[in-house]
Amino acid sequence: MLSTRLTKYLGIEHPIISAPMAFASGGKLASAVTNAGGLGLIGGGYGDEIWLQEQFDEAGNTVVGCGLITWALDKNPDCLDLVLSKKPKAIFLSFGDPAIHAKKIKSHNIPLICQIQTLKDAKHAVDIGADIVVAQGAEAGGHGEKRATFTLVPEVADYLATHAPNVLLVAAGGVADGRGLAAGLMLGADGVLVGSRFWAASEALVHPNMWQAGIKATGDDTLRATFADVARDRDWPERYSINLISNEFSDRWHNDEAALAANEKAKQSWRQANLDGDTSIANAFVGEAIGQISSIETAVDIITNMMQEAEILLRNKW
Amino acid sequence: MLSTRLTKYLGIEHPIISAPMAFASGGKLASAVTNAGGLGLIGGGYGDEIWLQEQFDEAGNTVVGCGLITWALDKNPDCLDLVLSKKPKAIFLSFGDPAIHAKKIKSHNIPLICQIQTLKDAKHAVDIGADIVVAQGAEAGGHGEKRATFTLVPEVADYLATHAPNVLLVAAGGVADGRGLAAGLMLGADGVLVGSRFWAASEALVHPNMWQAGIKATGDDTLRATFADVARDRDWPERYSINLISNEFSDRWHNDEAALAANEKAKQSWRQANLDGDTSIANAFVGEAIGQISSIETAVDIITNMMQEAEILLRNKW
Repeated sequence: MLSTRLTKYLGIEHPIISAPMAFASGGKLASAVTNAGGLGLIGGGYGDEIWLQEQFDEAGNTVVGCGLITWALDKNPDCLDLVLSKKPKAIFLSFGDPAIHAKKIKSHNIPLICQIQTLKDAKHAVDIGADIVVAQGAEAGGHGEKRATFTLVPEVADYLATHAPNVLLVAAGGVADGRGLAAGLMLGADGVLVGSRFWAASEALVHPNMWQAGIKATGDDTLRATFADVARDRDWPERYSINLISNEFSDRWHNDEAALAANEKAKQSWRQANLDGDTSIANAFVGEAIGQISSIETAVDIITNMMQEAEILLRNKW
Repeated sequence: MLSTRLTKYLGIEHPIISAPMAFASGGKLASAVTNAGGLGLIGGGYGDEIWLQEQFDEAGNTVVGCGLITWALDKNPDCLDLVLSKKPKAIFLSFGDPAIHAKKIKSHNIPLICQIQTLKDAKHAVDIGADIVVAQGAEAGGHGEKRATFTLVPEVADYLATHAPNVLLVAAGGVADGRGLAAGLMLGADGVLVGSRFWAASEALVHPNMWQAGIKATGDDTLRATFADVARDRDWPERYSINLISNEFSDRWHNDEAALAANEKAKQSWRQANLDGDTSIANAFVGEAIGQISSIETAVDIITNMMQEAEILLRNKW
């Protein structure tokens, strides 16, 4: 047990939140994380309401939270009503301006978690009433920006200490084991958000071939890129890119996105490969911490090991 | 006092090494760091022998180490003889293949520190006999690559634990205070290499206007780029970029390097501004941790504060 401001605020046992990874973080993973003493988040992603309904059903009576891509929610605001009707433990927004949605979430007395990628956006999250700020570094899997966990977390911690001492801080990007949890706490966070390690949890919705690619990869094999969103016809704002495992497709199309956009056949091949689990074409969306991950484990084992390792490190006699 | 494998191996009091920042880390800074209980490194950079001689003279009888840019040393191998003749505490190589220089350094029984930016290069550093591997993340100031401190350090730690348990590991990139030192130790390092914080030490060779730009900057203002090496006519291998504070010049020339290469007037304006301390044109070479730095302090104060903060964090009762 590591008691922090985050565990007290959320009433959870361990200061660990699972990242709401679009498509991968379903109700099974989210509820497994909550049942193991953390807080599980369903990855609401682009706001597919049928999928969201299924995943909340899957979570059953276990209390979970939900994450949504802010710019996608802007286009489909009704999705928030569905999520609110599920009385989630918290709502997590990232990638866009959370301001217009914050009011509604807060009027339902649901904790608002805002993930940010810059100090500037951390300040904005505080201004619009975030209860928890997640500082996400570029080493994270999936979408993000350029700044690093190691410097973003303490810089945001300093800002919060002066301007919003009651707002909690969570470190995201690169946290995959007890070392990362302990380091996040040292840097000034109240807990951690974990993506890639839970992507490689048996409860995650991931093609087994993708898992195999992940287990084989080192952190050197990851790449922050935009071609995959072009292949998927996902209209992401320019400031965000996605971290993934490089392969033959990325060797060809990374930094040649305009040509890819015009090449329906290449785009279609990526989408089909993503369904089929052909990792020579489709890319696994994971972060640099994939290099520390060598097996698929259950969420409860992941959390147990992470806590055990962190506790040994933090209670070491220096 | 924090005793680690690094302090024991080097016979120093604190597990802190100052980065051998080209032009900024002279004999005055290096000796101040050593005298404060860390290990100071002179930034031998591109291998200017007259400057190096002056800086070793400046360090006087204080034992310091020296860092060299490996690819520049390849072009001017005699420079290594000068450095070896000074009987440095350690020689630090980064940015290139250290193999051919390693043999000579080791034949003089001088500890070899190899800074690496990928797991692949860490393995190579072990193979060619590095005594200490410095894992440098992209958040570092000056030159570097893409991987992050937060994930590179534990991944290299895992590799060393299995394949080379006697090789020491130092974390670099983003370490500017006691939080960073404590986090580096949690991630598996035996100590830290500190750049930007010592760039903002009163003993560093930095134009006061650059310091002012640094104190004003947040981490958001930093940029990893290649235009500055084009402006300086420094022929860096493509894989490396440099982290700096963005300004009007970077707004204009970042990602337009081919045009800059052909524009003698623009290049000359950068070089003159660098001499004059005109920070609207010339860029300060610092890392993202600049956002945690708000004053110019002496090296001994920096180390004292860093140690005090780290000790409180590491001895906290969890």
